[in-house]
Amino acid sequence: MEKLQETVKKIQPIDQQAVEKAAQRLDMLTKPQGSLGVLEDIVKQLAGITGNPIPRLGKKCVVIMAGDHGVVEEGVSAFPQEVTPQMVMNFLNGGAAINVLSRHAGADIVCCDIGVASDVKHPSLIIKKVRYGTANMAKGPAMSREEATRAIEVGIEVAEDKIKGGVNILATGEMGIGNTTPSSAILTVFGCPVEKVVGRGTGIDDKGLALKIKTIIKAIEVNDPDPSDPIDVLSKVGGLEIAGLAGVILAAAAHRIPIVIDGFISSAAALVASKIEPRSVQYMIASHVSEEPGHKMMLEMMRLYPMLHMKMRLGEGTGAALAFHIIDAATHIQSEMATFESAGVSRSSSR
Amino acid sequence: MEKLQETVKKIQPIDQQAVEKAAQRLDMLTKPQGSLGVLEDIVKQLAGITGNPIPRLGKKCVVIMAGDHGVVEEGVSAFPQEVTPQMVMNFLNGGAAINVLSRHAGADIVCCDIGVASDVKHPSLIIKKVRYGTANMAKGPAMSREEATRAIEVGIEVAEDKIKGGVNILATGEMGIGNTTPSSAILTVFGCPVEKVVGRGTGIDDKGLALKIKTIIKAIEVNDPDPSDPIDVLSKVGGLEIAGLAGVILAAAAHRIPIVIDGFISSAAALVASKIEPRSVQYMIASHVSEEPGHKMMLEMMRLYPMLHMKMRLGEGTGAALAFHIIDAATHIQSEMATFESAGVSRSSSR
Repeated sequence: MEKLQETVKKIQPIDQQAVEKAAQRLDMLTKPQGSLGVLEDIVKQLAGITGNPIPRLGKKCVVIMAGDHGVVEEGVSAFPQEVTPQMVMNFLNGGAAINVLSRHAGADIVCCDIGVASDVKHPSLIIKKVRYGTANMAKGPAMSREEATRAIEVGIEVAEDKIKGGVNILATGEMGIGNTTPSSAILTVFGCPVEKVVGRGTGIDDKGLALKIKTIIKAIEVNDPDPSDPIDVLSKVGGLEIAGLAGVILAAAAHRIPIVIDGFISSAAALVASKIEPRSVQYMIASHVSEEPGHKMMLEMMRLYPMLHMKMRLGEGTGAALAFHIIDAATHIQSEMATFESAGVSRSSSR
Repeated sequence: MEKLQETVKKIQPIDQQAVEKAAQRLDMLTKPQGSLGVLEDIVKQLAGITGNPIPRLGKKCVVIMAGDHGVVEEGVSAFPQEVTPQMVMNFLNGGAAINVLSRHAGADIVCCDIGVASDVKHPSLIIKKVRYGTANMAKGPAMSREEATRAIEVGIEVAEDKIKGGVNILATGEMGIGNTTPSSAILTVFGCPVEKVVGRGTGIDDKGLALKIKTIIKAIEVNDPDPSDPIDVLSKVGGLEIAGLAGVILAAAAHRIPIVIDGFISSAAALVASKIEPRSVQYMIASHVSEEPGHKMMLEMMRLYPMLHMKMRLGEGTGAALAFHIIDAATHIQSEMATFESAGVSRSSSR
C-alpha cells in the first residue's frame, strides 16, 4: 500500500512550458500550421512529459501482464483457460503477434506472471504471482482488496525495473483468457450501460454474448462495487493483469515516461489508473480503437484519441506496438524538418 | 494515348487463389481468427497482388508529382503560388515532412515537375513538364484533353522507371498550391454535393471557403465536364499532378505492384484511375483519412478503408509514408508468427 501511495504522490502535471516551446518550433517548420495533426499533438505531449521541446525516444518496452479469471467457469470465453500459459510460453519463445510487431518496432518485451492459474516456467519469465487466477466474480469478489493493491504494486515494480534499465517509453500488453469480461464489468461500474459495453472478445457467438452480459450483471449485483473507490472496483470485478497494468501506467506517470495504451483490457487498466490519479492521463498515448464496443467509450471517458483504426481485437499489446513507429515518426518531424527560414519557403498569407 | 491504352489493358484482377492460400495460413497462426483485422486484410490483398501467400515487400518509393493551378488567381489558397517550387526544392534538399517520414519508413522519394508554373532546377528532379501550370478552370478548361492524357502517361513513365529499378511498392505524393480546389471539383463532378466536399485546404478562412465553393461551382458550369468520361473531367477541372498520379496508380496496377494512396489530392487521382479502370482499386491500399471533408467520401466511393486517423491535411505523401510501416508489419505477421501446432496452443472451442 505504501508503494502505491508513494507512486501516486509523485505524479505531477506535464510541463506546460515545454509544450509551448514545442508548439512554437512546430509552427516554424515547412508545413501549414497544425497540418500534421496527431503527429504534432504527440510531439507536444512528449515535450510536456520529458521537459524537452525536441523530444527523443530511446529504448521501448512492452510490458505484458498475464493472469487468469475464475469467471471463465461461467462459459464467457471462446478459448479454454489452458491457453493463458500456452500463450505466455509463445511470447517467451518469440512466436506471438506481439513478438513480431515488437521486433518490427524495435521494442523489447517483458512478460510477468501476475496471476496465471497454473505454474509457468521459463528463464525470461518474471514470476510475481499474486494468486493462482482470480475467483469467479459471478459468485463473490474476484480478489481481496490487499491482493488488488499488491497486484498494482507488482506492476509498479516491473515498470520501475525497466525504467531503471534505461527504457524511456512503455506500452501495455496483456494475456488472460476471459479478460474482456472483467474489463466490461469495470466500464459498466464506471457508468456505461452493460449492453453497449459488452463485445465478443476473442470470438463468442450470440448465446455466449447473452451469457456474458448476464454474468457481468450478476457479478455487479453480487459484489456491489463502489465506483468512487477504484481499488474496490478492481478487487471485486477486475483482474490481476488489469491491476498490474494500472500499476505500470501509474509508475510511468510517476517517472515522467510516456505510456502507450493498447486495446480494451489495457484501457480498462488505464481507466482504473485515471480514477486513482487523474493526472496519469497526461502521460497516456492511445494507440488503436479495437472491435470491442466498449473500447471507444473508455477512450472518450479519458479524452484519449486513438490514431489507429485497425479493426483489431487481439490484445497482447499489438496495437500499442504498431503505434510506436508513429510516435517515433512524430519525434523525427520535430528534430529533422526544415524551418520556413532555413528552406526559404514563403509563409501563408493568413499569418 | 497508346501508352495509356496499353497500360489499362494490362490491368487484371488480383489472384484469388493466392488470397485464399494467404487466408488459410492466417487462420493457422496463434491468434483468434480475424483478430488482427486490417493487418490480415493487407496480407490477403498483397498475396492477391503479388501471387505469393506469404508476401514480402522490398524497395519502397513515394512518387511526388508537382504542378501548379491557374485557379489560384481566384484566391482559393492560403499560400502563394511561389511555394510550389520552393517546396519542390525542400523535397529535393531533404527538409520536408515527406522526407522525414520516408527516411523513417526506409522509403525512397522521387519528385517530378509535371507542371510547375516556373522552372525548377535540381540534379535529382525529374523534369517532364506538360505545361507551365494549368489554366484557370473558373474561366475555361484547366488543360486540353491531349495534355491530360500526356500527364497520365508521364505518371506511367515515372512509375515504370522505378518499377524497373526494383521498387515493389509505390505510394502517391503531390505538391501544388491550390490543388484541393480541383480535387474537390473532381469529386463534385463524380456526384458529391459541393458544400459537403469542400474544406479549408492548407488553412483558408470562412470567406476563403465561400469563395472556393463559388469558384468550383463556376468551373463546373463553365466547363460542363462529362462524369462518364474521366479524362474529360481531368482536363476540364483537374490538375497536372492529379493526372500524373492517376498514371502512377494505373502503372502500379498494370505491373501488379501495391500502391499506397495518400490524402485528398491523391485520392482524387485514385478516383480518376478507378473510373478509367475499376480493377485498379484492387491494387490500392488506403493509408489515412485527412481533415478534408471530401476525403472520406472518395474512399467510400472506392470502398477503401483508411487505417490511420491522424487529423492530417498536409499531403506530399505523408500519410502514405506512415502507412508503409504498418503494411510491412502485416507481412511480418504472415511470415514470422507461430502456428497453433508449432507453438502447442489450444484452439477455440467454436472450431
